[in-house]
Amino acid sequence: MKLYGYWRSLAAFRVRIALNLKGIPFEVESMDLVKGDQFSDAYRKVNPQMVVPALVDGDTVLTQSMAILEYLEDVHPEPALLPADAAGRARVRSICLISVADIHPLLVPRIRKYITQDMGHSEEELTAWIHNWMTTGLAAIEEKLAGDAETGAYCHGDSLTLADLCLVPQVGAAAMFGVDTDAYPTCKRIFGACMQVPEIFDARPQAQPDFPEEMK
Amino acid sequence: MKLYGYWRSLAAFRVRIALNLKGIPFEVESMDLVKGDQFSDAYRKVNPQMVVPALVDGDTVLTQSMAILEYLEDVHPEPALLPADAAGRARVRSICLISVADIHPLLVPRIRKYITQDMGHSEEELTAWIHNWMTTGLAAIEEKLAGDAETGAYCHGDSLTLADLCLVPQVGAAAMFGVDTDAYPTCKRIFGACMQVPEIFDARPQAQPDFPEEMK
Repeated sequence: MKLYGYWRSLAAFRVRIALNLKGIPFEVESMDLVKGDQFSDAYRKVNPQMVVPALVDGDTVLTQSMAILEYLEDVHPEPALLPADAAGRARVRSICLISVADIHPLLVPRIRKYITQDMGHSEEELTAWIHNWMTTGLAAIEEKLAGDAETGAYCHGDSLTLADLCLVPQVGAAAMFGVDTDAYPTCKRIFGACMQVPEIFDARPQAQPDFPEEMK
Repeated sequence: MKLYGYWRSLAAFRVRIALNLKGIPFEVESMDLVKGDQFSDAYRKVNPQMVVPALVDGDTVLTQSMAILEYLEDVHPEPALLPADAAGRARVRSICLISVADIHPLLVPRIRKYITQDMGHSEEELTAWIHNWMTTGLAAIEEKLAGDAETGAYCHGDSLTLADLCLVPQVGAAAMFGVDTDAYPTCKRIFGACMQVPEIFDARPQAQPDFPEEMK
């Protein structure tokens, strides 16, 4: 498979973890979102929405990270990243969607650009926006996980699920943006446990070939 | 089942359509998001994230509309609202997620409040924000649907899918917010076809008991 991604994209990070865990070989085409590679004519033909990630599997072009994760679960069911029971699947998906729908879309490049360029806000005000939604979202995830008997070593029991694949990039991004993650001890504990898993550790932004030299 | 919803919530609208199409009886508890019912202690116990919808099925409390739709598909598979093939399911889910993740989260009450109260913007600037993301998102859906052989009477072929359940509230909201939907002819055509379906028509905001008298 071929993944159009970017080291910094939280959504591409989710997909890299799934591909690694399921042992699916893939090549990466890096789309520098800062330079605007996603707006090239070539990429527009792949994904007219001009965002990453996109995953190409033969003739099938897949977009939207959550839809890609579900597809990989469909076509490569082992190891399973969704629980066997409907209520468990709903719990896992709802944890995913707090990141996928309620936090991440507020932080992506097009939003940051609108806030600074169209609305005329300073970098400081942009940071306040980013922190506000990261902390609100992580608090919601923490409240869902903490003290719930279904939370185990990972978000749902003691096996990795899609919930962990969505939590890890979100916690990693919070740390990168200077958010104090000590306020979310369950999220932080699960992030730490996940980072012990080689397939997750190797998918981290810092390990990607397009991670900038000057940030190493 | 019991649905905590609100006439104006696009996410609750999606869930009402699914419940109607699958013939699942449900009662609604209206949460007035303008008055702040979602922040009550009673509702916080149902959904600590303090957003709607939440669906209660026996002892199971479900949150996040996309996770709820998948759950209903799991436990009430007929009529199927996802295609039988993995690539088709991925296409349907990716259309859903443009609304669920890329448009709707930018328009919800907590965002509108932050933009006007915390960032100090006028109602006019808020409307510009809302229109910008509605038009960007609908353009993305239109580009995905128009000229794609998989698009039929509805978003995916000639049977209703979750993609339609997510498209209908989004197009309805655009019209309500004064966005000219003529620019998205495929979306508009499918919206019209869907509104001919009694289970969808009856789920519309204007048909809900909590729709305000003064707006009728």
